[in-house]
Amino acid sequence: MTQNINPTPAKLESTNPSKSFVSHLEGAIDGEHLPSNQIQTLHNDRPIWVRYDLEAIKASCSPKTFVNRESSMWRYRELLPPAPDDTLISLGEGMSPLLPCLKLAETFGLSDLWIKDESQLPTGSFKSRGLAMAVTMAHKFDITQMAIPTAGNAGGALAAYAARAGMEAFVFMPADTSIINQEECQLYGAKLYLVEGLINVCGAIVKAGKEKVGWFDMSTLKEPYRIEGKKTMGLELAEQFNWSLPDVILYPTGGGTGLIGIWKAFNELRELGWLTDSKMPRMVSVQSDGCCPIVRAFEKGERHAEPFPNAKTIASGIRVPAAVGDFMILDAIMESNGTALAVDENEIRNWQELGARASGIALCPETAACVGALESLSTSGWIKKNERVVIFNTGASQKYPTVNAKTPPTIKSADEIDWSQFTK
Amino acid sequence: MTQNINPTPAKLESTNPSKSFVSHLEGAIDGEHLPSNQIQTLHNDRPIWVRYDLEAIKASCSPKTFVNRESSMWRYRELLPPAPDDTLISLGEGMSPLLPCLKLAETFGLSDLWIKDESQLPTGSFKSRGLAMAVTMAHKFDITQMAIPTAGNAGGALAAYAARAGMEAFVFMPADTSIINQEECQLYGAKLYLVEGLINVCGAIVKAGKEKVGWFDMSTLKEPYRIEGKKTMGLELAEQFNWSLPDVILYPTGGGTGLIGIWKAFNELRELGWLTDSKMPRMVSVQSDGCCPIVRAFEKGERHAEPFPNAKTIASGIRVPAAVGDFMILDAIMESNGTALAVDENEIRNWQELGARASGIALCPETAACVGALESLSTSGWIKKNERVVIFNTGASQKYPTVNAKTPPTIKSADEIDWSQFTK
Repeated sequence: MTQNINPTPAKLESTNPSKSFVSHLEGAIDGEHLPSNQIQTLHNDRPIWVRYDLEAIKASCSPKTFVNRESSMWRYRELLPPAPDDTLISLGEGMSPLLPCLKLAETFGLSDLWIKDESQLPTGSFKSRGLAMAVTMAHKFDITQMAIPTAGNAGGALAAYAARAGMEAFVFMPADTSIINQEECQLYGAKLYLVEGLINVCGAIVKAGKEKVGWFDMSTLKEPYRIEGKKTMGLELAEQFNWSLPDVILYPTGGGTGLIGIWKAFNELRELGWLTDSKMPRMVSVQSDGCCPIVRAFEKGERHAEPFPNAKTIASGIRVPAAVGDFMILDAIMESNGTALAVDENEIRNWQELGARASGIALCPETAACVGALESLSTSGWIKKNERVVIFNTGASQKYPTVNAKTPPTIKSADEIDWSQFTK
Repeated sequence: MTQNINPTPAKLESTNPSKSFVSHLEGAIDGEHLPSNQIQTLHNDRPIWVRYDLEAIKASCSPKTFVNRESSMWRYRELLPPAPDDTLISLGEGMSPLLPCLKLAETFGLSDLWIKDESQLPTGSFKSRGLAMAVTMAHKFDITQMAIPTAGNAGGALAAYAARAGMEAFVFMPADTSIINQEECQLYGAKLYLVEGLINVCGAIVKAGKEKVGWFDMSTLKEPYRIEGKKTMGLELAEQFNWSLPDVILYPTGGGTGLIGIWKAFNELRELGWLTDSKMPRMVSVQSDGCCPIVRAFEKGERHAEPFPNAKTIASGIRVPAAVGDFMILDAIMESNGTALAVDENEIRNWQELGARASGIALCPETAACVGALESLSTSGWIKKNERVVIFNTGASQKYPTVNAKTPPTIKSADEIDWSQFTK
């Protein structure tokens, strides 16, 4: 195993951080057991679950175990793939703030709305959770070159963790992706290609690179560990609410790993008996009507989604016309008595302003779509006035330039200001 | 007092959060005592310190008190101006990761280098600490309109906290400030003006607004509380190193409040007797040779700095030609046996790449200047091989577009890639 040249602070105080509670890996489409002591990708062209020996975890720790641990996603290491302190490829990701948003709640006649702010993670998005975990595992399995198709933020995150680990990253993103995403990849030294096509075209190029030169394919859900990193959003939410879950969760859905991971976390916590009551949240998958394959499949009652033609949305993270884990997303929605909702693409900018101004949080366009969904679902009564609702802010608004650009006035001195407009 | 419409999660478990340990305010230039029960600005045109009853703090809490508190800067509330839970204007700021950077250390022949990553704060910069504290206090004193001159990030942070508090913000920034800073202000609903001139011209406009229409002047060091928020960087660092301080701290210096606040924190901790040894760090103020008023004053052995003519640097946060707290910065450097150093403006981009690639951290150009200073000071022997060194990454590289822009290749499919270049 390669030496990690940027070690983690190692303050996790785990009882035994290198002990593995993973029982096996499991093909998500057919339940077949697969060994966890070797690198895995897809199984029968579909994703792989990581499964744990929950009885052994229960015997080894409890919710109280985590209280004094470092404030990062690694505090839950018994519930993650095994990674001793000196093998973690970490930038301190996780334990993002869970912020009450009363004013925004009141806008929609609600009273108990929270936003979990993932913009405060390394590289400014929730993507760092999945990639911290996946890069840690790839590094452990002696992978040295990784490639990723990305709508933007995942590429930046992979570039960061690859740099930290001393590994090579190849990033493929649509040519019109935010300049911020392009530049962060370049700053970290990743090899960046712009692609005339959407994320599925990027994915095909990565697949070719895997076959031709042996790149490891870091596409979402094409290896088992990104889900486990994203799962920590659900673990944190449970701990932050004192191990009781909210009524409704709204999550913007592109590739779907965030929603899938959160739902997996809740199920593991339920099986562990760590939740203080039996309530499970209703999961809401939010897309733009400019790209809503999951919503269409949900409406038709299907378990797999047709590729969405001519996908178009300013919320680049959910501009994903086809998802390899479609059935995992749709299963989570169904199991949770949730729903899937496409919002008006043309209103996303307005919801972004409305949400940021009412909450102070740097809402990205994908989360703005969730604000739109909140408006619909509270108006229709699907969400009730006193229900506890959580929206995840999956990234920083600052990574999406020109989405809301307006030209401000330019002045040279105080003399150019008409002060009378301000006198109260 | 106005009702805070976006309350904080209130998980701080303070013994008595509304108890004040502030003894008095104090003019920094003459030591005159000033009352803390009314809003304060400057005293004799110079900044004001907040002073505490350290004996009372000592009697009320100890380092162990903080262990189980929420992972934010508010965990240190006994050492902050009094603000009961329901009055905090908070976005969950603070407890940023302290990351070991062995590879970057080795580049300069060092062995114990850490970066405290302030890019993982609300709005992606350390500015959120000072403004969370200052807006909380302004809100408490029933201020409703605040104005700020900014190099960029402070304006974005003020806009965010003003939105959260339901207050009005007026932001003045140089016309060539990053589009990201412009847009975050607009997204949050702040009134933004671009100014043909540097931050001192912006400051003059805010001063005019204060006189003409009564805006509260949120300029750095022109009210007493931003320092206290920034002080938490020093408190966190001490706690993260188990209450022992490093040998050297490098901090990029614009207005200087960060460095001043950190040094204030260390002195308070020393007086409290909470440090495990008597070592105090040598504070290094880092500027670009395109704008280095503090370095020039330090080299001349003066306590006040001349305004720097024709200030020019891509590190916009340190493009501050004159600082009202110059003597406070220079005092901290002198008291700590530190130094002040100007680095080559033309090398900042290279240091940014070097640092980001070796650490995985989204280093901003201001922090890149500190990487340059690290190179100089380790080469000269001023920093010794085994000394523990900390650099603060004051903001996210992602907020500085085009600083490192290069044009990546654009392709349509895998066929356009010359795979032979990658074959290992």
